[in-house]
Amino acid sequence: MKRVCIVGCGAIGSLYAAHLARVAEVWAFVRREDHARALNAEGLRVTGKHNFQVSLKATTRPDELPQFDVGIVATKATQVEDCMAMVGSRLERGAIISAQNGLGSEEIIAAHTRGQVIRGTTFMSGTKHGDTHVQYELDTATWIGPFEPRHTPYALVKEAADLINASGLKAEALQDARPAQWSKLIFNASVNGVSALTGLPHSPHFADESQFSDVGHLLHELINEGKRVAAAAGVELQEDPWEMNKIGSMTNHPPSMLYDVRRQLLTEVDFLSGAIAHEAQRLGVPAPLHTALYRLIKGKEASWTFEDENKPVAQQKATGESNT
Amino acid sequence: MKRVCIVGCGAIGSLYAAHLARVAEVWAFVRREDHARALNAEGLRVTGKHNFQVSLKATTRPDELPQFDVGIVATKATQVEDCMAMVGSRLERGAIISAQNGLGSEEIIAAHTRGQVIRGTTFMSGTKHGDTHVQYELDTATWIGPFEPRHTPYALVKEAADLINASGLKAEALQDARPAQWSKLIFNASVNGVSALTGLPHSPHFADESQFSDVGHLLHELINEGKRVAAAAGVELQEDPWEMNKIGSMTNHPPSMLYDVRRQLLTEVDFLSGAIAHEAQRLGVPAPLHTALYRLIKGKEASWTFEDENKPVAQQKATGESNT
Repeated sequence: MKRVCIVGCGAIGSLYAAHLARVAEVWAFVRREDHARALNAEGLRVTGKHNFQVSLKATTRPDELPQFDVGIVATKATQVEDCMAMVGSRLERGAIISAQNGLGSEEIIAAHTRGQVIRGTTFMSGTKHGDTHVQYELDTATWIGPFEPRHTPYALVKEAADLINASGLKAEALQDARPAQWSKLIFNASVNGVSALTGLPHSPHFADESQFSDVGHLLHELINEGKRVAAAAGVELQEDPWEMNKIGSMTNHPPSMLYDVRRQLLTEVDFLSGAIAHEAQRLGVPAPLHTALYRLIKGKEASWTFEDENKPVAQQKATGESNT
Repeated sequence: MKRVCIVGCGAIGSLYAAHLARVAEVWAFVRREDHARALNAEGLRVTGKHNFQVSLKATTRPDELPQFDVGIVATKATQVEDCMAMVGSRLERGAIISAQNGLGSEEIIAAHTRGQVIRGTTFMSGTKHGDTHVQYELDTATWIGPFEPRHTPYALVKEAADLINASGLKAEALQDARPAQWSKLIFNASVNGVSALTGLPHSPHFADESQFSDVGHLLHELINEGKRVAAAAGVELQEDPWEMNKIGSMTNHPPSMLYDVRRQLLTEVDFLSGAIAHEAQRLGVPAPLHTALYRLIKGKEASWTFEDENKPVAQQKATGESNT
């Protein structure tokens, strides 16, 4: 039986952990003590598309972890650095799949382990109803492929995909996972940025291009700009992000960055529009719109700690106005 | 003694009304009954740069208004249409100064009156502490000039400037008021849009260009884009909006659009980035950044009435996450 480490148990990590616990020895590495305690005591329950209950091991202490055959990093992109610094040494003899949004997590993972890094992009989704209960929603696949700079053998990628498929989730092994990753990157960067700045969830506005002022035009231009950067990077997209957006716009679901800004949590923008902006700069192609989104979100994050004279803490009293 | 109508008594309108009441018969046209009652009963008090108390007439009923020699429209740009539809007929024999932010108010005023329209831009500022008390802060001038499409005689502009100067405020009559208006437009559109989207007031971030991700870069690019549109429109700027921004960034003052979005009030974006975007389209020059800002703010306004599944009305319960 293979030994698997799931790094981070949000909705996506919980789905991997629960399913893989049916076919492997699963350890969940989490950050909160009470999260680990609850998982060890109660196990993990899946509802929705699948319905079952499993037991697994969980810990917050890297020194308790054994060596693993497979790791799946399922934290937010912003937490990969901290987590891998703690668990990288336990994954040195295994294969480590990155399941983050956006671009750049594989490089961080690789810097912290001598293990075989696998580029991953997941299209499944779930809702976490508590530390020991996750609802399986979209049962779409996780696409995985070699991390090119490390020349990860394809046979290892195939083996990891087989394990995930055996667990009841869907995975596809690819010779090149970048076309899938970039499709989701461009879609994600565009809708997350616009959503976080406007406060709109995935909504019909995102595909509306009837008036000049409609935000659907901006989404379309952001996606086209992302496609041009992908082309400059030599990546042929697997799916058209505009088609993904048209489907998304019918869900009224708040994307993760909207969730983050509503709670004033650090966003993944460095790995989304920030990554597109940096890639564009590296490749010498323009990306003014993703660069603007990047800087606006960074400004928004800065606003949470900046105190101005009239910031409405409780109720605004004066009806101050300026002429700007 | 000249008879003057001040349309709208926010901070700017109150400053005009109070000062002009010292040298003219002033009527304030306001929308709230209690506002008119308070002004009629208590008059208007000015503190700050100037200190005095005046009485004046105020009403919410257009049919109570006489004919005027001079009108100053001091509402928000978004309210000019409604107000002018009510009072336009009382200004037909006079000169009407537009004191709105941005571009486009003069055209709306002209559509509702046969009076002589004067293009105006004010750089003064104040804080309204209540319906009958305004604090005079920046004692900078109001720049006025002819509204070109109506060939307003310069002599009338000069006369209006003399009246404002006699009242104790500062005004300057110009042969062409567009260089002043566009300088403020470009500054205002850029800082208001970025402020409303990030939640940052005028702050040091707006002039910070040290890191790639700094929002100061975006402000600089928005201002440069605005300058290119002004040049295409044949307008030579009076002041450099980037220099205005560098000064503004030291004030930590929330600009009006941040004030509006914090209270979910309709913004002036149609007259700011929206006006630059439309002018750029008309002139056949690109303005991708102001167009993006325009669409983002329009999306933000739409979000206030759009109900998504997880909108935090009171407290969020589920810790739902999606993979986008």
